[in-house]
Amino acid sequence: MIIDCHGHYTTAPKALELFRKAQIAALTDPKAAARSFKASDDEVRETLVPAQLKLQIERGTDLALFSPGAGRMSHHIGNFETSSEWSRVCNDLIAQVCRIYPKSFVGVCQLPQSPGVEPKTCIPELERCVNELGFIGCNLNPDPSGGYWKDPPLTDRWWYPLYETMVELDVPAMVHVAASCNPNFHGTGAHYINGDTSAFMQFVTSDLFKDFPTLKFIIPHGGGAVPYHWGRYRGLAQDMKRPPLTELLKNVFFDTCVYHQKGVDLLTSVVPVENVLFASEMVGAVKGIDPETGHRFDDTRRYIDGAAHLSETQRDQIFEQNARRVYGRLNKVLAQRGLA
Amino acid sequence: MIIDCHGHYTTAPKALELFRKAQIAALTDPKAAARSFKASDDEVRETLVPAQLKLQIERGTDLALFSPGAGRMSHHIGNFETSSEWSRVCNDLIAQVCRIYPKSFVGVCQLPQSPGVEPKTCIPELERCVNELGFIGCNLNPDPSGGYWKDPPLTDRWWYPLYETMVELDVPAMVHVAASCNPNFHGTGAHYINGDTSAFMQFVTSDLFKDFPTLKFIIPHGGGAVPYHWGRYRGLAQDMKRPPLTELLKNVFFDTCVYHQKGVDLLTSVVPVENVLFASEMVGAVKGIDPETGHRFDDTRRYIDGAAHLSETQRDQIFEQNARRVYGRLNKVLAQRGLA
Repeated sequence: MIIDCHGHYTTAPKALELFRKAQIAALTDPKAAARSFKASDDEVRETLVPAQLKLQIERGTDLALFSPGAGRMSHHIGNFETSSEWSRVCNDLIAQVCRIYPKSFVGVCQLPQSPGVEPKTCIPELERCVNELGFIGCNLNPDPSGGYWKDPPLTDRWWYPLYETMVELDVPAMVHVAASCNPNFHGTGAHYINGDTSAFMQFVTSDLFKDFPTLKFIIPHGGGAVPYHWGRYRGLAQDMKRPPLTELLKNVFFDTCVYHQKGVDLLTSVVPVENVLFASEMVGAVKGIDPETGHRFDDTRRYIDGAAHLSETQRDQIFEQNARRVYGRLNKVLAQRGLA
Repeated sequence: MIIDCHGHYTTAPKALELFRKAQIAALTDPKAAARSFKASDDEVRETLVPAQLKLQIERGTDLALFSPGAGRMSHHIGNFETSSEWSRVCNDLIAQVCRIYPKSFVGVCQLPQSPGVEPKTCIPELERCVNELGFIGCNLNPDPSGGYWKDPPLTDRWWYPLYETMVELDVPAMVHVAASCNPNFHGTGAHYINGDTSAFMQFVTSDLFKDFPTLKFIIPHGGGAVPYHWGRYRGLAQDMKRPPLTELLKNVFFDTCVYHQKGVDLLTSVVPVENVLFASEMVGAVKGIDPETGHRFDDTRRYIDGAAHLSETQRDQIFEQNARRVYGRLNKVLAQRGLA
């Protein structure tokens, strides 16, 4: 089985966008009409069959851990109530996807984060998604301000109540920023990657995992800049008398959203294979075809298959076994669906 | 000749730090005693002989393009006058270093940037450093706010008057942030790398180099995350109907401050060799010895020598010829010193 741990419902029905626009308009215009959102199962099918499902078949991948569009989380908009309503709608839609296509998608939720609001306010939505909707993970935004980085680092006690719930529920978080509203940062080209790099360095400099030995994070986009600068991080940890990075790798994992062969070669030869989870981010950041290969940039399965130094056992770890281990609830969900 | 295009005077005499502390104290305490700074030539020698000069000899590198400590620029402290006085003192000290050791150092200046202050205010100090002190480049901070990213992107017209002077003087800028005062960003482990990645993506999305066809930037620390995500950047440029990255490479260059063999292998096989300039950042971000190799992490010459796919001609480009081409005033300065 090939499990893609990083897929977003970026192709959601147009009505979702209209709902969001109305919600945002209502923030400043009390006369704006409230709008509710509901998609029929057919509408959902129409958005997935020619996109994620088609690409899964073409690429021979089986299952995506599927969450709402990450950029569109835009936690910087409005307040906690705004994010709360928006998260509920988006997560319910993911649950609908998983109900319609139980063999192809497992849910990962968006959290109702809001700048300056304590992360513990996200606990009820996380519990609802895991306990009632059958989700197995969440996306955690290290910067709800959308590019101004105003909240405390992920290693601050500010976040601890949420971590306690994550541990209790046995769900990991993918560290994933949302849209950038800072003109210095292009979203998918800078803010996303910076978020990944920053989170890793926060982990390097803290004792977070002494307090939460079983807490797990996946850093997407191949870990930002981290594997490329692996020597720098090993050296910084050593200079600061921090534990070696291998200690951190009990809790921190990287996905394979790196869109060329040499990048994936580096990732999989620098980071231990046990810490690399297959992912493509499709349909996501880059949609085009690489003229140098004739294949889509985000067809990351080809790069794992093409990494000559990997054994078949190692590929199996990256494609399937690591995800089953890191997402503690995955095996049970798959068994319930007859996909064990 | 081996030219290291990225060295900082991080080992400057203790008195420089005391001067800076007094300067900062005076910002809030009108009774704080003003302090002037002057180092004797012997004091300068004592700080370089056992550090940068010793390492140059050990590693067989010849010349460093040498600038004030980058973190210590801390443009977020005080106002334009604060930065102006601090830059003058730091740049004069670099000029003193170059006078004492003309065979080993060529000057690159710090600019008196300040958050919210127009970059054109830096022109007089840039002109002074180039025309009077013989410097050949400058460090340009894309985020004078120190991690809150409040000023316009590097591609905004806000920066244009400074670029006009850079072009007129034929000096490139290394895009280099200073210290982070945002607890989310470790300085050398996150803010530096994020600054590099963000600047590159700003360039990808703008027509800056149509307006300034001869303007040149060096992105340090191996280009942040960019070479590792080269496919992502090629794909984003293509999706956005921007020119291919090769167009950008007429104006944008990367240094080799990547502290492990596999990272340098990636850099030099993904980015055209003409765009890679040798650098070590010593004495800088990482000071220790890599237990896996027995050599210092920042001894980047070993990685260039060890990159098996490079020819001797290509190594010569990286070590020397590219720097001579990108730093337009370098050849003349070296000739004046009898080092042509």
